[in-house]
Amino acid sequence: MPRYAYVNGAYLPHKEASVHIEDRGFQFADGVYEVIACIHGHLADERGHLDRLKRSLSEVGMKMPLPEETLRFIIRELLRRNRLQNAIVYMQVTRGSARRDFAFPAENTLQSLILTTWPFHYDNLPKMEKGVSVITVPDIRWKRRDIKTVALLPQVLAKQKAIEKGVHEAWMLDDEGYITEGSASNAWILTKEGLLLTRKADNDILRGVTRTAISKICMDLKIEMVEQSFTPAQSYEASEAFMSSASAVITPIVTIDGHNIGTGKPGDVTLRIYEEYRAYVEGLRGQQLRWSA
Amino acid sequence: MPRYAYVNGAYLPHKEASVHIEDRGFQFADGVYEVIACIHGHLADERGHLDRLKRSLSEVGMKMPLPEETLRFIIRELLRRNRLQNAIVYMQVTRGSARRDFAFPAENTLQSLILTTWPFHYDNLPKMEKGVSVITVPDIRWKRRDIKTVALLPQVLAKQKAIEKGVHEAWMLDDEGYITEGSASNAWILTKEGLLLTRKADNDILRGVTRTAISKICMDLKIEMVEQSFTPAQSYEASEAFMSSASAVITPIVTIDGHNIGTGKPGDVTLRIYEEYRAYVEGLRGQQLRWSA
Repeated sequence: MPRYAYVNGAYLPHKEASVHIEDRGFQFADGVYEVIACIHGHLADERGHLDRLKRSLSEVGMKMPLPEETLRFIIRELLRRNRLQNAIVYMQVTRGSARRDFAFPAENTLQSLILTTWPFHYDNLPKMEKGVSVITVPDIRWKRRDIKTVALLPQVLAKQKAIEKGVHEAWMLDDEGYITEGSASNAWILTKEGLLLTRKADNDILRGVTRTAISKICMDLKIEMVEQSFTPAQSYEASEAFMSSASAVITPIVTIDGHNIGTGKPGDVTLRIYEEYRAYVEGLRGQQLRWSA
Repeated sequence: MPRYAYVNGAYLPHKEASVHIEDRGFQFADGVYEVIACIHGHLADERGHLDRLKRSLSEVGMKMPLPEETLRFIIRELLRRNRLQNAIVYMQVTRGSARRDFAFPAENTLQSLILTTWPFHYDNLPKMEKGVSVITVPDIRWKRRDIKTVALLPQVLAKQKAIEKGVHEAWMLDDEGYITEGSASNAWILTKEGLLLTRKADNDILRGVTRTAISKICMDLKIEMVEQSFTPAQSYEASEAFMSSASAVITPIVTIDGHNIGTGKPGDVTLRIYEEYRAYVEGLRGQQLRWSA
């Protein structure tokens, strides 16, 4: 079965899906993106991701390339054409294609909208059962990390450092030595006192959509969540740690910079939050894909 | 006459020149670039640009996609096919196309190499005769500004601010209030004492190839050039100011944040350096394009 992608109005075989070399996404990283998990036919937090897409666009002076209802249809149609119930949906909007110039192109330049999707199975993942390891690296990114742009080279370099060290993710450190977030995920620790810490969402980190869902779950579960920065040293002393993102969902962390966290196994609170998140995603009414009934 | 671009081994009509939507240049800004001026058939500082390309590639863990001699041939062949003697040559190298993942793709992934060129006439430019205006804006970029990557969104936003203010370029300010450089150019002032100031080339700015040529010209002309940071207030008091880049070459600046610089007209030293630079580019032997004789 061929794989399809959506590119500027057309559903194309994946191999033929391309953009012009003067697309501003390619030459200037002049674009933003979102990733949505599709779990057993449910689009996880679609509302939150579409809202954040609009915000990212607005922060860089772009608008939605088409009405939200149309985008929601395209997501579903692309999943349908690819026969996917468990998948990652990737969408990217750029300022379009124009002769190379740093300044914005003419107002009537058509923005580019690209969607791809690929299979991803969320059940029985080894990383959920065993947990993963992270290292800490300097955070060398720009100052507007709250905007989800495709200018991701610093994150690529951070993640690659982790891979070369044989671990799963890199947590980044600001100039004061506090952890900001992972290369593609938010960072969390549970202190020995039972406080769940994650950094305040200002311009220094991305306001994760999964992060927001977790904060609601914490209220339901009576877990005391505090928006507070923490250092690597504090994280080594934590009783649990995890990372969150659309595709990582909630992944337990068992070592940080080589230090065992807690028992060195995924923590109970982490797994409890994960279960609640899965129930939240799969229990939401009206989110189930029409063709999956 | 059709316009041609070079894309991964082929000279294609410009309109058909495209890259895959999973090219890492498009999804991650995982690529670097160079711009070379072609003035009356002479490639300005080709050696310096190719050296910097190699350095940028090396700093992000990439290699040259093909031998330098081949790249030099492609530049000339593309100019020939487009019948250009006065042009801007743009070249971009990315880590290639692979299923989306922050970590580097497999070692054997083919890098992408893209070249475009477009006509640009360097003689009798109004901006040389009248000079241009700049404003200052915060520098919100990442910490490795010495690498010429395509993660240019912060520069795009800075330049756009300038355009919206009706001026030509934005000079960016570090956290201490010193000017780093322009969105796409290095920044220079001539003090009333006759010192030509430009910022030291460390990780905070790009080591401009034109900047390096100017430093050599200053030695020939006995102009005292000092690598020293300066503030907007210092720049307002300057007797002359200019910006340098491959495509801007040396462009006089006549107002900064609305303050007239010197007489409010292009300065004599600036124009003298510009003339020397043009003579340097056009006088170099062995640089002239074979097909232009």
